[in-house]
Amino acid sequence: MVATKYKDMLQEKSVIRELFGYALNRAKEVGYDNVFDYSLGNPSVEPPKEFTQTLLRLIKEMDPMALHGYSPTLGIPSVLEKVAASLRQRFGLPYKAEHIFMTTGAAGAIAHTVRAVCSPGEEIITFAPFFPEYRPYITLSGAILKIVPPDYDAFQIRFDLFEEMINDKTAAVLINTPNNPTGVIYSEETLKKLATILTQKSKQFGHPIYLISDEPYREIVFGGIPAPYVSTYYKDTIVCYSFSKSLSLPGERIGYVAVNPNCEQGETMIQMCGQISRGIGHNCPPSLIQLAVAETIMLTSDLSIYEKNKNILYQELKTLGFTCVEPDGTFYIFPKALEEDANLFSLKAKKYDLCLVPGDSFGCPGYFRMAYCIETEKVERSLEAIRKFVKKEYNR
Amino acid sequence: MVATKYKDMLQEKSVIRELFGYALNRAKEVGYDNVFDYSLGNPSVEPPKEFTQTLLRLIKEMDPMALHGYSPTLGIPSVLEKVAASLRQRFGLPYKAEHIFMTTGAAGAIAHTVRAVCSPGEEIITFAPFFPEYRPYITLSGAILKIVPPDYDAFQIRFDLFEEMINDKTAAVLINTPNNPTGVIYSEETLKKLATILTQKSKQFGHPIYLISDEPYREIVFGGIPAPYVSTYYKDTIVCYSFSKSLSLPGERIGYVAVNPNCEQGETMIQMCGQISRGIGHNCPPSLIQLAVAETIMLTSDLSIYEKNKNILYQELKTLGFTCVEPDGTFYIFPKALEEDANLFSLKAKKYDLCLVPGDSFGCPGYFRMAYCIETEKVERSLEAIRKFVKKEYNR
Repeated sequence: MVATKYKDMLQEKSVIRELFGYALNRAKEVGYDNVFDYSLGNPSVEPPKEFTQTLLRLIKEMDPMALHGYSPTLGIPSVLEKVAASLRQRFGLPYKAEHIFMTTGAAGAIAHTVRAVCSPGEEIITFAPFFPEYRPYITLSGAILKIVPPDYDAFQIRFDLFEEMINDKTAAVLINTPNNPTGVIYSEETLKKLATILTQKSKQFGHPIYLISDEPYREIVFGGIPAPYVSTYYKDTIVCYSFSKSLSLPGERIGYVAVNPNCEQGETMIQMCGQISRGIGHNCPPSLIQLAVAETIMLTSDLSIYEKNKNILYQELKTLGFTCVEPDGTFYIFPKALEEDANLFSLKAKKYDLCLVPGDSFGCPGYFRMAYCIETEKVERSLEAIRKFVKKEYNR
Repeated sequence: MVATKYKDMLQEKSVIRELFGYALNRAKEVGYDNVFDYSLGNPSVEPPKEFTQTLLRLIKEMDPMALHGYSPTLGIPSVLEKVAASLRQRFGLPYKAEHIFMTTGAAGAIAHTVRAVCSPGEEIITFAPFFPEYRPYITLSGAILKIVPPDYDAFQIRFDLFEEMINDKTAAVLINTPNNPTGVIYSEETLKKLATILTQKSKQFGHPIYLISDEPYREIVFGGIPAPYVSTYYKDTIVCYSFSKSLSLPGERIGYVAVNPNCEQGETMIQMCGQISRGIGHNCPPSLIQLAVAETIMLTSDLSIYEKNKNILYQELKTLGFTCVEPDGTFYIFPKALEEDANLFSLKAKKYDLCLVPGDSFGCPGYFRMAYCIETEKVERSLEAIRKFVKKEYNR
């Protein structure tokens, strides 16, 4: 009988999607150029030309039966090989094809991983602020999401609160670095300390506590400094990756799960992903796109625009006196609102055609997210609106 | 802690996949031409040329940001419109975009529908023989699969046994016509009687019993007679469709859910599919392929080869004295084995390089499935092997 669990969810509305919808409608009234829509994390740069050329070549040259034929559930073998090779080359860990499971984006990767590492009733810990979709990924699998409150100073980890939260039901810890919504990258120090605690607690409770590392923003890093590769620091790490951001392909739903080659039961869990897939009708990711990303795996879109946008915005926000941790990557910034309720702050911003997402759904009330994956020219023009908003509403 | 539910599944092996693997290895030994692999239901004709041309045109002409950008969770609006229009035109029901949810193939469609129409512990009834993947689609959602034994005479429905099985926990009935593995199409009479019973039982138990109609083979029908459109006969019907077979695109994972426009809570369930999607990381089907199938939605591959193959095989099997219901469509035939245990029968067939799938996993022991989606020339050459097998092993 029509499942109330999902029916009830229809009442909850996504603040981000609503704001995005508002921006679209407002654009119809005042013109697209006059709405400063910082709501949605949709890449704003084209995929690399080589990706498009690869697509065309595959379609023209390959036997269409092979090109569009069934992929094995775990992924096309040559694609798995290429993903493993790229990880070996870039991060120096001995990945092989059997450590990889191709998915429909990071969402698919996390949904599978969560079902592999824990049974209903067990717990997964994450750190606020966090990507709001972690809630449905985890709770709809039957697992329980536990949230460590934010480290407001640097958006690293409140280890004191984290340690208290770990118990014998803790199956995994889910992190996201570079982070949505803060743009912050976990430092080596943070990752080392995290690994030490997880190692110790795994021993104490007699089972591995897995580290699920959600890495769709891995390539969007600023200042030319690569983000530390999480899996290097803790062997029981499961990477969930998406090509949505690096190759600007969010609609094509392509990503992967990569277990650390030394991960306890890692290869078994990859095999299990194939079984999990049978239940959720995922089966395999689209074959044409699998083949195309495998051929362009070491490329990225021109991601430099995001750093340019960050510099402009961060500078202005600091000048205006916002409390704000400087992003190390991604295309997000997460400043403190100028009043306690970020929802009211966001509501007032709308009057100036600024779409800012309140931090509540990220588990961090009082803050707001700006997704600056928009044209640089528009970021520059938005500064006047921001100044006006702050002056008129908060007299700053 | 590593989920035993899925880990245990690794022990169960798919008979079909194993046989397919055997055929691949055997082909390396004796040559591809000499192995008669009737194991896998993989389309053996090319996608229509127009599909490939559409793909190329979209890639060359569309803005890559729009082409590869996020699709709304329910599907790209123009695609939903085109799917609805094609169903209106072909089947005369007043479908609109809000009755459609785009999925990753029929697997995705069924997985979503099962989660929408029932909660864990409720029951879904299907009819043997049935597609083995119905088990994981249903049981991994927490629902219970009930199976009505086969109608051996015609592979229609044993209504007496069906009626006994319906109770107040019955949330839905799942059918597949044209059917895998029998190739049989449910007659108008069968569908009318099914509708009458479901209407009466829905009334008796005070809630709609939904009819989930799995229709990936809808276009593969023989003798030029279209299959009756299930949704016409019962308003609370939810169609699960895939383009895998009609356009020969199994690897591209594209299909849809279509609720009957008069289905009780139908539009709500489409919205719910979007929520279910959030939990299983499906999000939206690949955007490029969504757009391409929408443009070629009234086309099919050249499906005539399947009828040709059916005629050759059915004729020979009858001549050899097999008990066999003549297929009305699909690319399957499901004869009775020549000994009680179809597994032994299948094992012996291997000696003649014939790969025949025993019916046990389809819920119909003693029968076997042949997937004749192979070259006609090969079907013809296989007759000699079949004759030899039958003569030597069963002296017929």
